[in-house]
Amino acid sequence: MSKMKIYSGAYVILNPGSVVWVTAGDGMSDGVFTVTWNMPVRKEPAMVAIECSQNHHTYQFIRKTGEFAINVPEAKMVNAVLGCGRVSGKTGVDKFEKFGLTRDKAEKIKAPLIREAFANLECRVSQVIDMGSSALLLAQVVSTQVDEAHFVDGKLSFDNGLELLHHLTGDQFCISSKVLVGKV
Amino acid sequence: MSKMKIYSGAYVILNPGSVVWVTAGDGMSDGVFTVTWNMPVRKEPAMVAIECSQNHHTYQFIRKTGEFAINVPEAKMVNAVLGCGRVSGKTGVDKFEKFGLTRDKAEKIKAPLIREAFANLECRVSQVIDMGSSALLLAQVVSTQVDEAHFVDGKLSFDNGLELLHHLTGDQFCISSKVLVGKV
Repeated sequence: MSKMKIYSGAYVILNPGSVVWVTAGDGMSDGVFTVTWNMPVRKEPAMVAIECSQNHHTYQFIRKTGEFAINVPEAKMVNAVLGCGRVSGKTGVDKFEKFGLTRDKAEKIKAPLIREAFANLECRVSQVIDMGSSALLLAQVVSTQVDEAHFVDGKLSFDNGLELLHHLTGDQFCISSKVLVGKV
Repeated sequence: MSKMKIYSGAYVILNPGSVVWVTAGDGMSDGVFTVTWNMPVRKEPAMVAIECSQNHHTYQFIRKTGEFAINVPEAKMVNAVLGCGRVSGKTGVDKFEKFGLTRDKAEKIKAPLIREAFANLECRVSQVIDMGSSALLLAQVVSTQVDEAHFVDGKLSFDNGLELLHHLTGDQFCISSKVLVGKV
């Protein structure tokens, strides 16, 4: 996989509503968990929203650093997506190792990026909305890279076998890989 | 299509990240527009977030009533989904009529529901986060109905031909209709 930086259009990657991995870390330790509830909230400069439980082991790193990364998996990574949602980092398990995920260094934040994700969005939290046991985080996207095989002319391309993974519930997901063009 | 009320699990309908129609009205007049950026933010009692431009003709009804409905289309409605995003209600056009959408009466809110959507979520705004030209609306889901052919045992079912529609960018969408089960 060969990833390229993009300087606009990060929202395009999240538009279709894929499930994502969120990573965070402080340079000493780190963690990863799976997030179904994510979306863009501004095009340019890009902003995103994610909803996450304040109980997540990894959430402490987001609180401490104000940073996280969104890592977008292809459908073939479904078991690692489910696993990072099912297993808690509090168990002491290294979920990266357990689920075959490789840490890459981010450009602008301390969180690790997941090499096996086809896109990585580095984010800095700008607002935290307390939802009780969970928090809605609004964040600026400060750096974005995407597999050049799957992002062509500013759009996601399915020509090279990209399959997006969407969470249904529990261990069930659905996949999208076919483009439909609307007409008005 | 035969819709049934459901009293829990509304978030399951939005989990996979479909594009939706948002409707609003004051009992005298109404409108509809297409929203790519939507997600659940709480399971029970269900809450959702949608991002919408404050310029939308229909947004005035949301401000006035504090209410809107989320209407989830199947992929076969792609042209009406694109159309309701492309055409402004400010033109005076009745987008329901223009794009073949039928108004149904909601149970608890003044907004019309779209009969052709396979699911309708009636929502009351609880918080507005000003994002400049757009607003992030957090809302309680106060009533939910879903096509009983496509929602079985608390889950979306693809056994009867359901195809979900996800927005990519511009006039391009992708569709999901195939379930993938993860294993840990």
